[in-house]
Amino acid sequence: MNIKPLGDKVVIKKVEAEDKTKSGIVLPGSAKEQPQMAEVVAVGPGGVVEGKEIIMELKVGDKVIFSKYAGTEVKLDGEEYTILRQNDILAVVE
Amino acid sequence: MNIKPLGDKVVIKKVEAEDKTKSGIVLPGSAKEQPQMAEVVAVGPGGVVEGKEIIMELKVGDKVIFSKYAGTEVKLDGEEYTILRQNDILAVVE
Amino acid sequence: MNIKPLGDKVVIKKVEAEDKTKSGIVLPGSAKEQPQMAEVVAVGPGGVVEGKEIIMELKVGDKVIFSKYAGTEVKLDGEEYTILRQNDILAVVE
Amino acid sequence: MNIKPLGDKVVIKKVEAEDKTKSGIVLPGSAKEQPQMAEVVAVGPGGVVEGKEIIMELKVGDKVIFSKYAGTEVKLDGEEYTILRQNDILAVVE
Amino acid sequence: MNIKPLGDKVVIKKVEAEDKTKSGIVLPGSAKEQPQMAEVVAVGPGGVVEGKEIIMELKVGDKVIFSKYAGTEVKLDGEEYTILRQNDILAVVE
Amino acid sequence: MNIKPLGDKVVIKKVEAEDKTKSGIVLPGSAKEQPQMAEVVAVGPGGVVEGKEIIMELKVGDKVIFSKYAGTEVKLDGEEYTILRQNDILAVVE
Amino acid sequence: MNIKPLGDKVVIKKVEAEDKTKSGIVLPGSAKEQPQMAEVVAVGPGGVVEGKEIIMELKVGDKVIFSKYAGTEVKLDGEEYTILRQNDILAVVE
Repeated sequence: MNIKPLGDKVVIKKVEAEDKTKSGIVLPGSAKEQPQMAEVVAVGPGGVVEGKEIIMELKVGDKVIFSKYAGTEVKLDGEEYTILRQNDILAVVE
Repeated sequence: MNIKPLGDKVVIKKVEAEDKTKSGIVLPGSAKEQPQMAEVVAVGPGGVVEGKEIIMELKVGDKVIFSKYAGTEVKLDGEEYTILRQNDILAVVE
Repeated sequence: MNIKPLGDKVVIKKVEAEDKTKSGIVLPGSAKEQPQMAEVVAVGPGGVVEGKEIIMELKVGDKVIFSKYAGTEVKLDGEEYTILRQNDILAVVE
Repeated sequence: MNIKPLGDKVVIKKVEAEDKTKSGIVLPGSAKEQPQMAEVVAVGPGGVVEGKEIIMELKVGDKVIFSKYAGTEVKLDGEEYTILRQNDILAVVE
Repeated sequence: MNIKPLGDKVVIKKVEAEDKTKSGIVLPGSAKEQPQMAEVVAVGPGGVVEGKEIIMELKVGDKVIFSKYAGTEVKLDGEEYTILRQNDILAVVE
Repeated sequence: MNIKPLGDKVVIKKVEAEDKTKSGIVLPGSAKEQPQMAEVVAVGPGGVVEGKEIIMELKVGDKVIFSKYAGTEVKLDGEEYTILRQNDILAVVE
Repeated sequence: MNIKPLGDKVVIKKVEAEDKTKSGIVLPGSAKEQPQMAEVVAVGPGGVVEGKEIIMELKVGDKVIFSKYAGTEVKLDGEEYTILRQNDILAVVE
């Protein structure tokens, strides 16, 4: 399935928090920290969005930090994604 | 009946969530996930809406993901539709 | 009485929901669905409204779907009308 | 006393709801419908208000319908007036 | 003490409500109506305020009606003043 | 320590309310009126702030009245300052 | 790990409040004042952000005072950072 975001929207997939503590104990899902890191899966074309010129700075594959409460979670082919505006992406991590 | 949305509005019809689990058990309506996928039924002309230039990126027949709480539900000829602004459409799925 | 809306405002008159169910039983007012369809009775001149250029797309006699909670209800000569901004009209139905 | 509204503001005086029902029974104040019709008493000069160009469409003597909760009520020489922005006037009635 | 408001701000001094009822009974402060009339004491220079061009229409000595809940009350040399934006002044009374 | 506010921000230091009543009784801190007068300690460069052209009207040493609830209080070298936008300064007092 | 903020965003690292009182008593974390001073770790490129031209005034290494409730806290490689818009930075301290 191919997903094409509109305007200044971006599709990201959360990067799972690590499953082990430093001492090697496996943590159940709820004990892991809420992940805020994600990988960009698809990027909208930008252009004039709501009357404002938006230039897309992101590209597919970028590792990003995003605003935890931003965006809409969607499920596609059993996978969870978040769709949010580029402006809710805080930074790219390299 | 022919429906023509104004400005940057779009009419969509929700795509029903699948009625069966993988194991083939038929689920009653309330047990199905809230569908967020829809098909575009009609697209407004765009143009200057509320003082902002809007170019319509969608076309009839597009499969889209939309923001669950956006838009107004309307019933026409016994069918349910949602009318919302193009900007509340998150992505096109192909 | 002649009513002339200002700016981008439109006067509509709700189209009554049908009084009978398919089986022909007459429904009392409260059992009828809240109508969302209306006929345009008067259209403002548009122009620059609140600093934004507004072009009126509607004309008298159009059947429209409107946002249920939008606008102000007014009573003129014993008839009820709703006055709302053109942008709160969702679509024209033909 | 002469009142000159600023910018896009308009002074209106509510037109009293009729005091009698069709059958001629005189209604006390609280039983009368909240009047939404008013007469324009004074009109601001318009111009650039809050950075937006406003052209005044109303003139003194116009009978208008206004948004019930808009504006500020003021008492001048024992008379009650409402001062509101022209944009809160919904329509002119002739 | 000389007070010079910034931008589109205006300093006004409330005009006291009359101290006597028509029958000549002196009212204590709390029984008097909340005054909404004031005299302009100082007027800001206007100009570009928050990116919007503001032309000052008021001058010192104008009697004005203002929006009761607008502005900030300040005490200078034992006197109470209200500082508010010109746009919160509703009308000039002559 | 040297503090340089950004954009349209201004650093002010509250001027203490007088410590004595007219009769000469020394008041404890909590009985004093909340001071709204301050001295400007540092002024940002202005320019285009959030897309709006801002011209700084204030200079260091100005005595100003400010909006009581505006700004952020900060402690530097044991002294308390308030940093706020120039637009939250109401007036200069001379 | 290298972090590159988008648009007008800035990454800062809080400067720890001093661990000792003047008398030399070591304070536990909770007794220390909430730090509002930070060092700039990374600066976005600025440019047109949400339709507004933003010029970045900050550079890496600047000591800044920031608005306590602004921004998003993120943890990278075990270190805590705050990512916020340049406009939520109040002042540079030298």
